Amino acid sequence: MVEASRPLDALNRARDNRVIVELKNGKQFVGSLKAFDIHINVVLENAEEMESGEVKRKLGVVFLRGDTIILISPA
Amino acid sequence: MVEASRPLDALNRARDNRVIVELKNGKQFVGSLKAFDIHINVVLENAEEMESGEVKRKLGVVFLRGDTIILISPA
Amino acid sequence: MVEASRPLDALNRARDNRVIVELKNGKQFVGSLKAFDIHINVVLENAEEMESGEVKRKLGVVFLRGDTIILISPA
Amino acid sequence: MVEASRPLDALNRARDNRVIVELKNGKQFVGSLKAFDIHINVVLENAEEMESGEVKRKLGVVFLRGDTIILISPA
Amino acid sequence: MVEASRPLDALNRARDNRVIVELKNGKQFVGSLKAFDIHINVVLENAEEMESGEVKRKLGVVFLRGDTIILISPA
Amino acid sequence: MVEASRPLDALNRARDNRVIVELKNGKQFVGSLKAFDIHINVVLENAEEMESGEVKRKLGVVFLRGDTIILISPA
Amino acid sequence: MVEASRPLDALNRARDNRVIVELKNGKQFVGSLKAFDIHINVVLENAEEMESGEVKRKLGVVFLRGDTIILISPA
Repeated sequence: MVEASRPLDALNRARDNRVIVELKNGKQFVGSLKAFDIHINVVLENAEEMESGEVKRKLGVVFLRGDTIILISPA
Repeated sequence: MVEASRPLDALNRARDNRVIVELKNGKQFVGSLKAFDIHINVVLENAEEMESGEVKRKLGVVFLRGDTIILISPA
Repeated sequence: MVEASRPLDALNRARDNRVIVELKNGKQFVGSLKAFDIHINVVLENAEEMESGEVKRKLGVVFLRGDTIILISPA
Repeated sequence: MVEASRPLDALNRARDNRVIVELKNGKQFVGSLKAFDIHINVVLENAEEMESGEVKRKLGVVFLRGDTIILISPA
Repeated sequence: MVEASRPLDALNRARDNRVIVELKNGKQFVGSLKAFDIHINVVLENAEEMESGEVKRKLGVVFLRGDTIILISPA
Repeated sequence: MVEASRPLDALNRARDNRVIVELKNGKQFVGSLKAFDIHINVVLENAEEMESGEVKRKLGVVFLRGDTIILISPA
Repeated sequence: MVEASRPLDALNRARDNRVIVELKNGKQFVGSLKAFDIHINVVLENAEEMESGEVKRKLGVVFLRGDTIILISPA
């Protein structure tokens, strides 16, 4: 069981792992979590935009602005 | 009767218990509350997205950004 | 006549009393006001979600994030 | 002619007088302005929600969260 | 030609003059600019709500919350 | 090639030049950029609201609140 | 593999390179990233607005306000 006292600890533990990021506009991105900050700005590598479980486009590195993000979870 | 002088005290009391989290976009998540902060960023474990009382998908650990959250309540 | 110099004084006076809380998404909650903070994050006990004057569901303790709240008034 | 150098001075002058408050969701409230703060959180007494110039419901004391407010004007 | 190094200087120059204020919800108000602050909260006197170039209603003094305002211009 | 280390440097270089400003509500304004601040509040002179490439109305001086602005570019 | 401890490091590495910027309103801009700040305000040069993979208009230098931005990625 994880000992997570602060939410950003959970993001830190996910660093370099593949995560799914869902945005307020309904878009989904999957990629390797390389960086984040207190605003939940996030950088993914080898990122792909997903639609209905299929790859819609490959983005490589992508910076996602925190205030558009709803959730982050291991992919 | 609970003695809660500050709202975050109520979240602290719910730590490690199962909670329901409802988002502005209407989505519902149920899971074990592992972490939160003053922005109401939240981390759930053994999390499931619910729809009409049924499990829509299992997410394991999920980070939910605070500004998308409407309410948190014991599940 | 109430002497209220600051809005939070009015909330403080309502503590432990039943209040109605209305959200931006049109939802209504009624419960005992146990806690609030400067962001107007609120904790209700014995809370019920209301719809057209009828109880839609019972929630027990509920944490409501302040930025989703429109109004708070004695029930 | 009023000498108002800061907007909150105008609210201060309206204290204890009946005002109309209009919200972003189109709702209108009329009541006696008892308190406000820099976020424009507002407390009205003897408050009524109005619709098309008719009283829709009586609320007594009501706390209105500032970020939902569009305008405040003498009733 | 006006020498305006900061946007609030332009508002200061408009003080006591009639201005048009347009809101995010499409509403238009015309009145004498009596006060403003850094949040662009604004107080108009002899204010009128306009619709399609016609006076929709007379408001006298009106406080407009800054975050609802799109533009301010001489009337 | 422009040496712009900070975004506001680019706005500073555009001062007194004609710029196009586009708002979140889809409106377009063209005018001479006279002032801006860190919130991207902007003052234009000789400003015109444009629609489909045509002048919709002439505004003279106009103050545009920063949080309504999407982009600013030389006209 | 990139070593990115903070999201803005990734933007810094993209400086002077062509990037795609997507906005909350669905618009896409491609251009050379010349400047950004902690609000993710961005300045592009040789910027073009794209629609369905085609150039919709050429903007030259464009300032994009950070709170309208969803993502930034190498073009």
